[in-house]
Formats: sequence, C-alpha cells, structure tokens
Amino acid sequence: MAITFRASRTVEFGDTDTAQIMHFAKFFNFMEEVEHEFLRSRGLSVIMMHQDRRIGWPRVAAKCDFFKPARFEDVIDVELTLSRIGKKALTYSFDFMLRGETIARGELTTCCCLVSPEAIRSIPLPAELRAKLEAG
Amino acid sequence: MAITFRASRTVEFGDTDTAQIMHFAKFFNFMEEVEHEFLRSRGLSVIMMHQDRRIGWPRVAAKCDFFKPARFEDVIDVELTLSRIGKKALTYSFDFMLRGETIARGELTTCCCLVSPEAIRSIPLPAELRAKLEAG
Amino acid sequence: MAITFRASRTVEFGDTDTAQIMHFAKFFNFMEEVEHEFLRSRGLSVIMMHQDRRIGWPRVAAKCDFFKPARFEDVIDVELTLSRIGKKALTYSFDFMLRGETIARGELTTCCCLVSPEAIRSIPLPAELRAKLEAG
Amino acid sequence: MAITFRASRTVEFGDTDTAQIMHFAKFFNFMEEVEHEFLRSRGLSVIMMHQDRRIGWPRVAAKCDFFKPARFEDVIDVELTLSRIGKKALTYSFDFMLRGETIARGELTTCCCLVSPEAIRSIPLPAELRAKLEAG
Repeated sequence: MAITFRASRTVEFGDTDTAQIMHFAKFFNFMEEVEHEFLRSRGLSVIMMHQDRRIGWPRVAAKCDFFKPARFEDVIDVELTLSRIGKKALTYSFDFMLRGETIARGELTTCCCLVSPEAIRSIPLPAELRAKLEAG
Repeated sequence: MAITFRASRTVEFGDTDTAQIMHFAKFFNFMEEVEHEFLRSRGLSVIMMHQDRRIGWPRVAAKCDFFKPARFEDVIDVELTLSRIGKKALTYSFDFMLRGETIARGELTTCCCLVSPEAIRSIPLPAELRAKLEAG
Repeated sequence: MAITFRASRTVEFGDTDTAQIMHFAKFFNFMEEVEHEFLRSRGLSVIMMHQDRRIGWPRVAAKCDFFKPARFEDVIDVELTLSRIGKKALTYSFDFMLRGETIARGELTTCCCLVSPEAIRSIPLPAELRAKLEAG
Repeated sequence: MAITFRASRTVEFGDTDTAQIMHFAKFFNFMEEVEHEFLRSRGLSVIMMHQDRRIGWPRVAAKCDFFKPARFEDVIDVELTLSRIGKKALTYSFDFMLRGETIARGELTTCCCLVSPEAIRSIPLPAELRAKLEAG
C-alpha cells in the first residue's frame, strides 16, 4: 500500500518573481520541506543520530514538470508518495494541487548516507529506519 | 553545431545549508542565471518586448542529477548547451564542473509564451528570435 | 492599545547555512511573511485593489538585531506589533522567540503606495484601510 | 583612511518578486556577498582556521534603508566601507548604486567568534587578522 503524506504551503511574496508567479526553483524547496515534515511525522529527520552515527539523506536527483503557475498567497496542497524504497535510496513523488487542480508534479531521490565532517558515504538503509518509514 | 555558453558562479554563504554544502535547489537558480546570461549574450532576455508583444519563457520542466557536493566559496563552471530548439520549446542542458570534475548535470525546458497580466499563452518561436539564438 | 499578532515559523533546511544556523537574511523573510499573515487576518493584502487602484506597501527600512542562533527544525514564535501608524508609513516591530527566549528583534517600515507598471508613488493611508488595521 | 571595497551584482530573476523589483531581503544577501568578497580580497574568509581554531563572524545586527527599487537585470554597484573596527566587532556600511544613483544604504555588524559544533563564543579580534583587514 502506498505510503503518502499531505501538507500545504502558502506562496510567500519572496517566493514569487517578476513574472508574478512562484519561482520555479521554489517548487524544489516545497518538495524538500514536505519530505522533512513527512520524516518528522515518522519520528525521523533528514539529519539524525542513529546508533552513534550521523545519518543524512543527500539529494541524488530532483525533477519537476510545471503545468500551471501559482501566485502570491495561493495555498498549495502537496501530496507526497514514497514511491520507491531501495537498498540505499528513497524516491518520493510529489503532486502540487491548487484549487483541486494539479499544477506541477515532481520527484526527489535521496540516498541514505553516513555524514561526517570529512566525507559523505552511502550506506544500506538501516532496518530500523526502514521500519519507521513503512510504519504508516 | 552545438550552441554552447560558459559562465561561472561562486557558491555564496546563503547558498549553503546545514549539511555545509550548496543547497540542491540552488543548482536550479544557477541553471536559470546562466540561461539568462546566455540570452543576454544573444541580445535577448527572458522577459522582452518583441513587435509590441511581451514575450517570456516560462519553465516547463527542470531536472538535475547530483554527483558531488559543492561548498562555500567554490567556483562552479557551468556549461550550457542549447540541446533542442523545438517549435515552441527550448531545452538547455547544463554541466556543473568543480575543479575539472562534473559534480551535477541538469536540464531546463522553457516555452516561448506571450505574457500579459491576464494570461500566459504559448506561441511558435518567432523566426527573428530563433535567428538570434542560432547566431552564435 | 497595542495591535499585535502572533505566528510561528519552522526553520527549514534551505533556511540554514554552513554555520548550521538559520541564515540571517531569512529573518527578514520571516518578518515579511508574518506581516502578510497579519494583513490577511485584517482582510487586507500587501498587494490589493482599493477603489480601482492597486495599493502596495513597499519596504522603506528594515533592521534586525541577532542575539542567539536558530537551527534546522526549530519552531520560532514571532510576535508582530504594529508600533506606529503614520500618515503614509507603518512600522512593525518583531520579537523572535525560541523556547521562550528572545533570539532576535527586528523592525520593518512600509509605506502605502499606488503601484502601477510605470511607477510606485506614496499616498496617505486611506481611512478605510486604517480602520481595518486598527479593527483588532 | 577609510577601508573600502567595490563589487557589483546583477539582479537575477529569482531575486525579484511580484512587485517586479528586487526583493528587499536580497539586499542583505548582497551585503554579505560583498563582505565575503572583501574578506577574500584580504586573504581572509568568514569561516576560516586561525592557529588551529575555527573563526567565524556571525552577524550581530543588520539594517537597510531603501530609496529606489532595482529590477531584473539591473547591475548594482555596491560600495563597502569598513566603518568601524572594534575590539571584537566589525561594522560595514554599504552603498547600493544603480546608474550612478544611491538606491539603498545598509549596515552590517559582525562579531569575531570561535565556532565549534558545541558553541559560538565571541573573542577579541586576533592582531594578525586585524592587520590583514587594515592592510589595504
């Protein structure tokens, strides 16, 4: 069964540009913010300690298709779907809805990593973290 | 022959995040900034008047794959390639190079549009603008 | 009696920097976002039509003193006080509170203006808008 | 004799907002970016190792007065003046010039600090760093 999560975001003045619409790069911020809200809802964080090791999920790939613009003060409903749990990587899909209509659709792939000041190294997703992601 | 353009960008403090690397969404800003610099180099702009009509290039799709992080004060060399000129749409590819190594690779698809306060409507790329893009 | 308004903001990953704290410029975004939320709570907007004229409140001055840092996932409580209603200008004060402690204190001065594509011109604050601001 | 430094910045599309002018918070980014460029020009950095200690300059206060707007593709000339070197704190003043006219004027106060993962603690400005700042 699909793991989904919903959150909404208001388009702030600083999110818009001279075309008087939300700047396209902000859709990527919104994706990440909803991903982080989802992780918190599962008792996780994008930067967290796990068994004395610092674990993070750097972004490996991101994409978005834009269908309709959003404007200042619009409230966008974002639906996240955890569409793939790989050995090391997670893929999230995002639907951006404005007044019931899909205005953009995005995807974010992150990779479970050990993070230290010296290096960032990918590791297999620990079973305990996987369990929390799937707990629903 | 491929239409290419090169520019470089310094990673500013405000571009980085708690992981002490450039925030992934900023790669999309860098793509756009280099696209705009390219357009200016051809006597064009992403928002310009053409035969009394306001023409813009809203983003239709954007994506990026991230291979290695960039950090504060790194100077990133960005190579833009205008990889496809369609009837209405342009697709740009971007190589992000740091100290000679490709750290990310992105793509941006924009669509030639009439822009008015009321609406944004796609139009066939005017011949004169196409000529400027291809002038090299 | 003081006109106040409270809202809270989560520090997002993209709001932080290499010092692993919220980037100082984001405090100004937070001020503006809370100002706009306050205006909406009074039936106003920072860009709105009033008697067939487009009215906006461009920023005239902004400042902030920073006492303690905020970090990723901190929830900051912001208290806005409309500290001065002048003939044309409004001054807002902001207290940023984290876990009960004031971490920053800011101020924003905006000016009531007619906004057109050609120019931005200050005007005396219309009585009806003033009434809404003071309505509480 | 005043210690000054000049740099210019192009207003990018993502720096503008629905009012079709540069967003006010971006002026603070520009101040910081020019401050960092100034520090680099003196062989310093806002985050650097000095005698095995990590030294940073967190922002203590920032302010800006806005006189005229800047728009997409405007090139702003920024003049930094290191207006005060205190025991621990530095104060920079900034003039933002557009086509020869001052459009904004800002100030940034930073404080010399030891930065560790555990804490940020102010220290007297080391003599060697002061010498570099004053070297001209």
